[in-house]
Amino acid sequence: MVSYTPNTGRCFMSDNIAGASPEIREVDVFPVSTGTAANCIALASLVKPWGSILCHPDSHINNDECGAPEAFTGGSKLVGVAGNDTKLDPPSLRAAVSRKAGDVHCVQPSVVSISQATESGSVYTVDEICELSSIAKSAGLRVHMDGARFSNALVHLDASPAEMTWKAGVDVLSFGLTKNGAMTVDVIISFDPTLASELAFRQKRAGQLASKMRFHTAQIEAYLADGLWLRNARHANGLAARLAAGIKSIPGPELLKEPEANILFCRLAPHVIKELLGRGYQFYHDRWASGTVRFVTSFSHAPTSVDELVEAIRSCYVTKPQSRM
Amino acid sequence: MVSYTPNTGRCFMSDNIAGASPEIREVDVFPVSTGTAANCIALASLVKPWGSILCHPDSHINNDECGAPEAFTGGSKLVGVAGNDTKLDPPSLRAAVSRKAGDVHCVQPSVVSISQATESGSVYTVDEICELSSIAKSAGLRVHMDGARFSNALVHLDASPAEMTWKAGVDVLSFGLTKNGAMTVDVIISFDPTLASELAFRQKRAGQLASKMRFHTAQIEAYLADGLWLRNARHANGLAARLAAGIKSIPGPELLKEPEANILFCRLAPHVIKELLGRGYQFYHDRWASGTVRFVTSFSHAPTSVDELVEAIRSCYVTKPQSRM
Amino acid sequence: MVSYTPNTGRCFMSDNIAGASPEIREVDVFPVSTGTAANCIALASLVKPWGSILCHPDSHINNDECGAPEAFTGGSKLVGVAGNDTKLDPPSLRAAVSRKAGDVHCVQPSVVSISQATESGSVYTVDEICELSSIAKSAGLRVHMDGARFSNALVHLDASPAEMTWKAGVDVLSFGLTKNGAMTVDVIISFDPTLASELAFRQKRAGQLASKMRFHTAQIEAYLADGLWLRNARHANGLAARLAAGIKSIPGPELLKEPEANILFCRLAPHVIKELLGRGYQFYHDRWASGTVRFVTSFSHAPTSVDELVEAIRSCYVTKPQSRM
Amino acid sequence: MVSYTPNTGRCFMSDNIAGASPEIREVDVFPVSTGTAANCIALASLVKPWGSILCHPDSHINNDECGAPEAFTGGSKLVGVAGNDTKLDPPSLRAAVSRKAGDVHCVQPSVVSISQATESGSVYTVDEICELSSIAKSAGLRVHMDGARFSNALVHLDASPAEMTWKAGVDVLSFGLTKNGAMTVDVIISFDPTLASELAFRQKRAGQLASKMRFHTAQIEAYLADGLWLRNARHANGLAARLAAGIKSIPGPELLKEPEANILFCRLAPHVIKELLGRGYQFYHDRWASGTVRFVTSFSHAPTSVDELVEAIRSCYVTKPQSRM
Repeated sequence: MVSYTPNTGRCFMSDNIAGASPEIREVDVFPVSTGTAANCIALASLVKPWGSILCHPDSHINNDECGAPEAFTGGSKLVGVAGNDTKLDPPSLRAAVSRKAGDVHCVQPSVVSISQATESGSVYTVDEICELSSIAKSAGLRVHMDGARFSNALVHLDASPAEMTWKAGVDVLSFGLTKNGAMTVDVIISFDPTLASELAFRQKRAGQLASKMRFHTAQIEAYLADGLWLRNARHANGLAARLAAGIKSIPGPELLKEPEANILFCRLAPHVIKELLGRGYQFYHDRWASGTVRFVTSFSHAPTSVDELVEAIRSCYVTKPQSRM
Repeated sequence: MVSYTPNTGRCFMSDNIAGASPEIREVDVFPVSTGTAANCIALASLVKPWGSILCHPDSHINNDECGAPEAFTGGSKLVGVAGNDTKLDPPSLRAAVSRKAGDVHCVQPSVVSISQATESGSVYTVDEICELSSIAKSAGLRVHMDGARFSNALVHLDASPAEMTWKAGVDVLSFGLTKNGAMTVDVIISFDPTLASELAFRQKRAGQLASKMRFHTAQIEAYLADGLWLRNARHANGLAARLAAGIKSIPGPELLKEPEANILFCRLAPHVIKELLGRGYQFYHDRWASGTVRFVTSFSHAPTSVDELVEAIRSCYVTKPQSRM
Repeated sequence: MVSYTPNTGRCFMSDNIAGASPEIREVDVFPVSTGTAANCIALASLVKPWGSILCHPDSHINNDECGAPEAFTGGSKLVGVAGNDTKLDPPSLRAAVSRKAGDVHCVQPSVVSISQATESGSVYTVDEICELSSIAKSAGLRVHMDGARFSNALVHLDASPAEMTWKAGVDVLSFGLTKNGAMTVDVIISFDPTLASELAFRQKRAGQLASKMRFHTAQIEAYLADGLWLRNARHANGLAARLAAGIKSIPGPELLKEPEANILFCRLAPHVIKELLGRGYQFYHDRWASGTVRFVTSFSHAPTSVDELVEAIRSCYVTKPQSRM
Repeated sequence: MVSYTPNTGRCFMSDNIAGASPEIREVDVFPVSTGTAANCIALASLVKPWGSILCHPDSHINNDECGAPEAFTGGSKLVGVAGNDTKLDPPSLRAAVSRKAGDVHCVQPSVVSISQATESGSVYTVDEICELSSIAKSAGLRVHMDGARFSNALVHLDASPAEMTWKAGVDVLSFGLTKNGAMTVDVIISFDPTLASELAFRQKRAGQLASKMRFHTAQIEAYLADGLWLRNARHANGLAARLAAGIKSIPGPELLKEPEANILFCRLAPHVIKELLGRGYQFYHDRWASGTVRFVTSFSHAPTSVDELVEAIRSCYVTKPQSRM
């Protein structure tokens, strides 16, 4: 459903509706070395310096890129739009898209950036993306999708790439490969041919036009050629579900939400967190709330590793923590 | 207590403690054409592109300058620090100053920007400024003061400029003249001599080095020479107090807070707002909450104008609005 | 031939061909506080960050604005185009406009900036401007005119503003007032209505939207209302011609070129330069070549001042310099 | 003589003087994905936005990076310093380093960027680098070395990395790997520990901090571990010498200069250029002068390929071009 021809630098995304003649769409592809670069070059092509980028307050572009979006765009402002589950809330977005439009004293809403899957691993349905895009488009804004975990969301929805992107109103996609198997490449995919020239210049000017591009494109080709990317994503998502089932089987820990992609949030007792860390497990904890733990499963993890983690948690809960005397 | 010598481009700020030998401090002065320019050049000298500027979410630099701070600083991020009354809250600031310090994935807290008086007309006490500065300095941050309404705050506190700025830890001040009587000039005052060279280059490079600087400095001289600036500010503040007293004398409107500077917030009935607008009064209303009205008094208003406004409000409340039939 | 209505912020430029019905053109006007700001905001509206600005190596934007054009444009490159007399040479421009067009490794020629009059006081004829614009336009570039000395050039050519600007292909003009009589204002005039919105946001974001705009517009109105600007320019140009005639009447100094605007270059003996400086005259000397002196005449100079300068030079040449023994 | 420990991100450069105890110097290392990124992040750490970068007019940073240096530095100006053989000329540099120093109207000379080897393949001697650095340092400027062909220059000089860099006054080096064997990595090496923090933030903010850094560092390790980089460079340089000898053995072509690194310039007859291109050879020609051809030899070329090229040229000259009738 996605084919890539490195020689031409062209990529095709089609529907995968069985029995129907697929709708083919040619897109423009720009391989870059990091997800930060993909997001920031994409955003810069969609916003003027005095424009604003509407995104969730907890989004990666707002918190984890050291202000790179501001740097690449010439100082555009990221404006937070609230929403549960790290997803943009349609009514909040509706209020934001026209805020102070035309007022020279204020930055002008210009692009909506949607993370699919989100930083917390939640996944927008295709309908939700369409609704957000529709709100954006009706106010003249463009739509960017941060797809660092694109494949995890895709297999969760069992949608086609086309349904989840250009058919849903996305103008430019940051197509993440690195988190799902590639070594050194992420990709900007533009569905708007009028942006191609600007993106090419921005890519070069950002120091992201590799002289030996073949080492980037070879990764893309292998990733897409025979569905490796989908197998990897299904594997990772499956491990998150396996971990969720395991945790639920233990009295004590609380699963905060059924995982949709490859991220799982649960609540663990302090002595459990401490002991897991002591055994060499690495994970974020106590960032969002005391006792809240985030586990991320990967294409490279084995099911047995997940099972071992489940047993480790179980054993921590069975063995009562020693009182501190 | 402030003297300005245009020929040398030097300004002196001293304590005005009667009977004591005043403490004189030489400062660096950069006249510019707008408050936006003053704020942005000042901030740019205090923050790296990957640094963040901590300010109140409702501050002028965050909302009303079309992203100019981001433009002048090379894309620094403005990070909101909450607080009642449009003032930075010390505990919130304490949490913010060290947030993700040293983490390359995140913008680095670099400067605290305090508005004195604030956008809502509230005034920090000298002790409050000292506390905020102390929190900033202990974490290695610099302190900027947006003094668009500096003189209104000063006369409210009956403090000296020195007490309210460098003695309280302020590194660079945007000293606003335009709102209090000047025509076309605001001023950057730096208390840190090591910033002088950078500020001079930034001023020129921002298109803010006037070739006929004498027309700027003449305004500054007249403003400061015989205390005109303080008389103007006292006049404007006095009118706000007069307006507050008038409004309180009317049954119906609600004064939301005793004005500290020259800004007054009250709640008026919808038909009163409508009728005042119809009579030609201009003011912000219904921005913050339905029925909330902001009045700003000026050095150029006459007491009789305030009295007329009070009577206009009174008459609106006496005359019941006609029912819509 | 130029009318300005401050209330509407609209300006009209018409032909002044006697006996004919003048062609009126509405333009967009943005008053700013310096010529640097006028040039840089204008240029930023005409070039992308990866575009280049073609200008004479000796132009003001290239040498005397501390890199402000680079700052306002997000890092566009200024590329020198050679030419005698500080004027762009058409063949050189023809080679430059298409240099590496479409090559992502190179900045893309995007705008030609013409100074009228130039830094050396030379004046393009209307035909010369048309030729340069034609070269630019045929390659898809825009045309900016740095008119810091616009009025001096205009009265020299006895042309209409329309002939020298939009009729000759100029897209945006920096209309300089300060050097010819105004106090604190220069103006961006855009002949392309599609740029108006961007220019308005750039003006605000650059800290150039004065809150008391009336003090800017009053200057513009007085400058244009009854032809003051043309009288001032004719006066200054006339003094340069008077100075030239005076210098030619003295055996010794060499007039390097008949002045066209209000700038005159001549060669003086070292002891004459030294003595004039000693008498309090201020002028650039020995910058371009040893002994080369630049005199600039102004709207505010009196003919007697010019005559006194001529006599001062004469007396220096009559009185032989004392030998150094 | 260069060792790299990926686990620590530390690199050591030592003298390789036989029989002497080598002088070890720890440096800071930042792997990035392109030479453009290496140059631009390095330069940005050495110059303020209002500073200028002194470089040869024909340098790569000035011509072939689409204005990336201007983008990364916040709009610094690249100022050309002339010199034969694409090398900076010491007297020209001496004049440039203090040009308008302290004048707020002008960009301030801040860093000298030396390409080793240069765009034309010439190599600075160690003494030449020392002289340029000395001129820079005495005026307070920093020194950057664009080492895209660092290894080719190094083996030509038979110098140690230390001698050619920090011992010669270089502050930050763009250490190029890609042209000499690596796949997707170039490296910034800073000899000034005070720059490390800024470089780390700039790297992240530029989208150049790879999440799977190990795929970058593995390349660096293999490149340096057993002298592969030096063998590759010697191989490429040797092929250039072999090609030069071959060309000199043919009557007709003119070798313009003995190659120092892996770049060779010669003059070929038009019909020879045409025929070589027809046979599938790819090379730059007629860029610098009519008939001038540039050949670049690589670590991946075989000696037989060079010999075949020599014979191809020879056969073109032996076979007279058919007259066009």
